[in-house]
Amino acid sequence: MERPKRNIYLKMRTLEDARSIWEERTSGIRSSMAVVSTLDALHRVTARPVIACRSVPHYHGAAMDGIAVKAQSTFGASDVHPLRLQIGKKAFPVDTGDPLPPETDAVIMIEYVEQVGEGEVEIRSSAFPWQHVRKVGEDIVAGELLLPVNHKLRPADLGSLLAAGVLQVTVYAPPKVWIQPTGTELIPATLAHEAAPGQIIEFNGTVLSGLVKECGGEPILRDIIPDEYEHIKKMLQEAVASSAEVVLVNAGSSAGSEDYTAAIIDELGEVLVHGVTMMPGKPTILGFIQGKPVIGIPGYPVSGILAFEQFVNPLLHALQGIPAPSFAHVEAQLGRKTPSKLGLEEFVRVILGRVQGELIAMPLQRGAGVITSLTRADGLLRIPQDLEGVDAGERVRVRLLRPEEQLDHTLIMIGSHDNTLDILANELKKRDSRVHLSSSNVGSLGGLIAIKRGQTHLAGSHLLDTDKGEYNFSYIERYLKGTPLRLVQLANRQQGFVVGAGNPKNIQGIGDLARKDVTFINRQAGSGTRILLDYSLQQAGIASDSVQGYDQEEFTHMAVAVNVLSGRADAGMAIYASAKALGLDFVPVAEERYDLVIPETSWNDPKIQILLEIIVSESFRRMVTDLGGYDVSASGALMGIWDGEKWIRTEHRDER
Amino acid sequence: MERPKRNIYLKMRTLEDARSIWEERTSGIRSSMAVVSTLDALHRVTARPVIACRSVPHYHGAAMDGIAVKAQSTFGASDVHPLRLQIGKKAFPVDTGDPLPPETDAVIMIEYVEQVGEGEVEIRSSAFPWQHVRKVGEDIVAGELLLPVNHKLRPADLGSLLAAGVLQVTVYAPPKVWIQPTGTELIPATLAHEAAPGQIIEFNGTVLSGLVKECGGEPILRDIIPDEYEHIKKMLQEAVASSAEVVLVNAGSSAGSEDYTAAIIDELGEVLVHGVTMMPGKPTILGFIQGKPVIGIPGYPVSGILAFEQFVNPLLHALQGIPAPSFAHVEAQLGRKTPSKLGLEEFVRVILGRVQGELIAMPLQRGAGVITSLTRADGLLRIPQDLEGVDAGERVRVRLLRPEEQLDHTLIMIGSHDNTLDILANELKKRDSRVHLSSSNVGSLGGLIAIKRGQTHLAGSHLLDTDKGEYNFSYIERYLKGTPLRLVQLANRQQGFVVGAGNPKNIQGIGDLARKDVTFINRQAGSGTRILLDYSLQQAGIASDSVQGYDQEEFTHMAVAVNVLSGRADAGMAIYASAKALGLDFVPVAEERYDLVIPETSWNDPKIQILLEIIVSESFRRMVTDLGGYDVSASGALMGIWDGEKWIRTEHRDER
Repeated sequence: MERPKRNIYLKMRTLEDARSIWEERTSGIRSSMAVVSTLDALHRVTARPVIACRSVPHYHGAAMDGIAVKAQSTFGASDVHPLRLQIGKKAFPVDTGDPLPPETDAVIMIEYVEQVGEGEVEIRSSAFPWQHVRKVGEDIVAGELLLPVNHKLRPADLGSLLAAGVLQVTVYAPPKVWIQPTGTELIPATLAHEAAPGQIIEFNGTVLSGLVKECGGEPILRDIIPDEYEHIKKMLQEAVASSAEVVLVNAGSSAGSEDYTAAIIDELGEVLVHGVTMMPGKPTILGFIQGKPVIGIPGYPVSGILAFEQFVNPLLHALQGIPAPSFAHVEAQLGRKTPSKLGLEEFVRVILGRVQGELIAMPLQRGAGVITSLTRADGLLRIPQDLEGVDAGERVRVRLLRPEEQLDHTLIMIGSHDNTLDILANELKKRDSRVHLSSSNVGSLGGLIAIKRGQTHLAGSHLLDTDKGEYNFSYIERYLKGTPLRLVQLANRQQGFVVGAGNPKNIQGIGDLARKDVTFINRQAGSGTRILLDYSLQQAGIASDSVQGYDQEEFTHMAVAVNVLSGRADAGMAIYASAKALGLDFVPVAEERYDLVIPETSWNDPKIQILLEIIVSESFRRMVTDLGGYDVSASGALMGIWDGEKWIRTEHRDER
Repeated sequence: MERPKRNIYLKMRTLEDARSIWEERTSGIRSSMAVVSTLDALHRVTARPVIACRSVPHYHGAAMDGIAVKAQSTFGASDVHPLRLQIGKKAFPVDTGDPLPPETDAVIMIEYVEQVGEGEVEIRSSAFPWQHVRKVGEDIVAGELLLPVNHKLRPADLGSLLAAGVLQVTVYAPPKVWIQPTGTELIPATLAHEAAPGQIIEFNGTVLSGLVKECGGEPILRDIIPDEYEHIKKMLQEAVASSAEVVLVNAGSSAGSEDYTAAIIDELGEVLVHGVTMMPGKPTILGFIQGKPVIGIPGYPVSGILAFEQFVNPLLHALQGIPAPSFAHVEAQLGRKTPSKLGLEEFVRVILGRVQGELIAMPLQRGAGVITSLTRADGLLRIPQDLEGVDAGERVRVRLLRPEEQLDHTLIMIGSHDNTLDILANELKKRDSRVHLSSSNVGSLGGLIAIKRGQTHLAGSHLLDTDKGEYNFSYIERYLKGTPLRLVQLANRQQGFVVGAGNPKNIQGIGDLARKDVTFINRQAGSGTRILLDYSLQQAGIASDSVQGYDQEEFTHMAVAVNVLSGRADAGMAIYASAKALGLDFVPVAEERYDLVIPETSWNDPKIQILLEIIVSESFRRMVTDLGGYDVSASGALMGIWDGEKWIRTEHRDER
């Protein structure tokens, strides 16, 4: 696993150097060849040039329906001097594809042939030789090169091979890739439900298998072995002796006390690179044993996937004689300042969406161990190792993790987190499979600021004005001057204290937070929940520093609930739904209004319109109600229209 | 098959209308659902939202190697006041991934821990709570939405599913597609070698199967049936009664006397569209029988593929709840005026290459029956139905048929045809799998003009100056003023008369072409061979109009030889290699020099450099010699350097 700060890698290289070393040492290698039926050759790559066995067409054929004639016998025919031809003697009816009868060299289209009496036709213009005739070899000539070597066979290619009588083709066999999960702490996914603390579900093997398949390779996924010297050595000897052409060892590739892989590769063969200045992906090993490439893949999932893409993907394509397809990139504007370590090439996962015509990239702040940071990302931002980071607003080149056409259908929602967003995301995809909700949870205030900067299509907000005792209005007046928008209610929801099942610490209200035996878990500053908590403390006359754990912050309701579930805290403020989801108890504190803040600039966006349809739909209301703790009776209600200076119209302005 | 001029289609629609009618009628349909193991779910599409079964991590774990501590117990530690902790009491050694021991809430990295004496460590800074700890649910929280419905599963997605304990997932089953080849003239590819005139190899079925697979579908390729009313009706009844979700009938989809498909679909169900104003692809049928989509696919291969892409591809994706991926396009400059029929949306196959920084699109002039017009193309140019064509030099949007990154590696060669180009193309791919030779045969003069216009990287030329009796020099002086270039010899080659095996008409020389019993096949004007012929005729004092077939032109040596092979002509002028390839006899007329004309602008292009390496290589010379009729002793020799005004240097200027 990764230990970024521990530089005892002996053969550390920059990503660029590592790639060129690897390319140079692997470029010559080719996968074994196989002769396969053309019918089974789709997407395989030719290992030899393909020569046509026969000409296509192999006969002179009619290219139209009509009559076949000898052109000479039609010369002189005109409207003034129509010419009559006897069927069977000078004119022969043919359909498209029929061979030309002997002595004929042209076809006259049926449209221009007039039947006159029995067995006779009349034409009013002469035919020139070989008109409307598909001549022998017009498409393919026997003996010509049909396809060169190193060509990936597409469906149409198979057609041309069959047409030319090529029934078998010599291709590169799919490279066999030995995938070896190692780790004493690993258990198979099938045992996920009995996983004890310290045990980790093995899933990298399945991810790597999928990546191998996408490269046209054949994965050989092995059972887990413990990361012990003898086991790994024995396995590697077996692997290189097998028919596998590439060996991947997952984890144990770092430079720690229990990371033997590099040492063993060095012992059995040669280590070219150990440690690459990329992040995630640093603990990568590139080596050879008995002429076979052996790659140590980092254990953290994101690190492993990135290492695969940098080193295994090009190798598997080279083995098949073709270049690795390049990744699609787009230009985007970075939404948030993103620091990066000097000397490390960083791959930052971002969400992407087009807001007011501008493509915005919002970094997802998650670690290399967090696979959802990749599955939820729309793109990858690569920060060169000589940069300390990239500022907000800078234009960056982002590699796409979704098809580009999806970007225009990505709805960006930045702001407060609410469990109903899951339901929204799913309903959106259900109604229009192209639409994709990318949300970033930075709290209500963060959402308003993102709107101010034009970085989001909408924001979720539940900001309590503690003087007026109302939601969102005054904050919008303060932070969104000059930004016309509409305020739409998503739902009213229960806020309160999430406590352990059975409420073991018997927490009844705000007062209990001051107790010495109670540990609290807080939400980040700027979140509506934090403001509600601070307001409640103030009302109760409790100083924040008397609350244990007040300085411990989480970013979502579920994370707060998880802290309580795991015993890290006795209580935290969150919505009822999060307590219910994890089977915890809940002590209500207040009902609050959660609104959608929608700038005018995106109000007419079809995606927003679909979203508005959804939140007033029966099915949505039912699903939200089932979450518990929500009042959806006013969902979709227009709370106010803000023209940037004043409220043109507001509803329930004084509700609490 | 296609009969463009016969408008008896009853439900003809424009491509746009046909697409929207089809989309509207098929959008709701979904493929059947299946519950599959997550391990087998790669590239399948979720038919239901996926909810996490467990949290990841499911315990508080060390994110670093080091010692686990209770943060509070470290407060106050500093360089001035180092703090000592007893192993096993206040400090617990942990490796990354280990669960935190009870009562601990932080990890101090090993680098900052000093071993002092037995069972004691020293730290010089305090830990804050939960530092270097991966908390429960940091990645995934049980109960949250992992993936929405209608999401195509990528390798990383499978990882997140397994991590979250999701071992099975509900996906759309691969849509089953019934593919029915019809046609009395069809024979299976396995019988290609005994194909009689009038018989056609069935290969569309294999092409369509490949296209179905690329759309995530499951092809059911049926045996050929004759295109007779009863057979087709019986088949369609069987097809709609089967488990197939889509039915494709290949050919018989036109409006001709033997095209029953539309009538039968109309009888058993409903025809929405018959005939689409696209070309190729016009004879397309869109219909339904008992709620199942039934599509009539045109018989000409290019028509069939285009019809599939327009109507079946989006359908198969819709069945899986996802949009069809959009095709990649590029902007290019059209190299040649391209006329197009008004009222027909035309799809023109082009070759693409970057010449002097400008992407050039050169149309390939071939028909819908010619599948190699698609396999050899780099792109598709779509000409809207309201245009009569596109002028040379206009900027056009071209759909890519190869990965975009390949365009920079495409070497464009326009000019005279020579059989060694096949070998060149293959050797290029062999040396650098990215490099791809796209050649267009327009004759020597056409090549020089393409160079003048900056539309090609190089040209092949063998233009005889009949006064000076030398090759190419004077033509370059005349046509390429102001275009600096270098002239490199490819080979000297035998030109002569290709005649039937055994030379049945006993043709001994140019004189025999005037014989009444001899039919000649000519090359197009502007080709070096044509100039050589005309020169030879003139020398012999033979008038061209006394040569039968003089007005019949072909564009390549092989095409000329094929005409002789098929008995269409008794003799044609071509290179020896073409006669040898088809086992014909050859009557030598002259040896001529074939040069590569390489403008200075592309001389330093790496692709050109590779090409120059190849033509001096032993392997290349051997392969060319094996073709027969070539003298490669001077291959690669620099014949001259032209600075645009004069020859800086010329070699063998007076050779013949």
